[in-house]
Amino acid sequence: MYKIKILSVGKTKEKWLEQGLSEYIKRLQATATIECHWAKNSIQLESLTQKEQNLVCLDPQGKTLTSEEFATFLLQKLETSGSRLSFVIGGAEGIPLSIKEKNTTVISLSKLTFTHQLTRLVLLEQLYRAFEIAKGSRYHK
Amino acid sequence: MYKIKILSVGKTKEKWLEQGLSEYIKRLQATATIECHWAKNSIQLESLTQKEQNLVCLDPQGKTLTSEEFATFLLQKLETSGSRLSFVIGGAEGIPLSIKEKNTTVISLSKLTFTHQLTRLVLLEQLYRAFEIAKGSRYHK
Repeated sequence: MYKIKILSVGKTKEKWLEQGLSEYIKRLQATATIECHWAKNSIQLESLTQKEQNLVCLDPQGKTLTSEEFATFLLQKLETSGSRLSFVIGGAEGIPLSIKEKNTTVISLSKLTFTHQLTRLVLLEQLYRAFEIAKGSRYHK
Repeated sequence: MYKIKILSVGKTKEKWLEQGLSEYIKRLQATATIECHWAKNSIQLESLTQKEQNLVCLDPQGKTLTSEEFATFLLQKLETSGSRLSFVIGGAEGIPLSIKEKNTTVISLSKLTFTHQLTRLVLLEQLYRAFEIAKGSRYHK
């Protein structure tokens, strides 16, 4: 069982978005435990990342991937990190430089900027899609 | 007032997603009227596009843009198209070739593949963001 953390700033305000996140966390539960940590601000986000060994930052300026490439990336990362991975989504000011500088991997879900709230949903859908691609299911077709 | 149509295949099944779409359509209503047409299948999607003059297809293989580039693209397109534009989102098999071949513009919201349901939400958020960028508001900061 994989263990994936999502670290981000700000509560999920919209109820519909909260339901969307729950939906994907539920779908993922056979494959991975998803832990969400919503920090109050960038300082708290930094302190949340300090204990983490395997960080992947999401930033529009990072490397863009197709869903198949993301699946390969995810599975390889999980293999080399003892099945534990933490994704970091920045707040309105992006990801603090101190986190980016920590030899972390920076990838991009899109060149477009999304609200960090929507980024959570897109990330969870891609995590689910990645595991379905790895399983060879028909979800992603 | 701009008039934007979103043409896509399949009903929005999830209630939370339906609420998300409504949220952005409401936020957009001061600037643009959004009309959503959900076709039953690709054949119906093709017939929906036949009456449309200014089509923009969304496809992961299209040109990727930043949110600022998308805003510029959108505003220029609306200016040359009498303020009317139709976005086409394909179903599980993508956008029918007959639509793509019709001298339409093909852009990509991400190299990643999203469900076409989620694409609707991401598109609406980007439309809202684009108009906020054009207005110079603080939403996109």
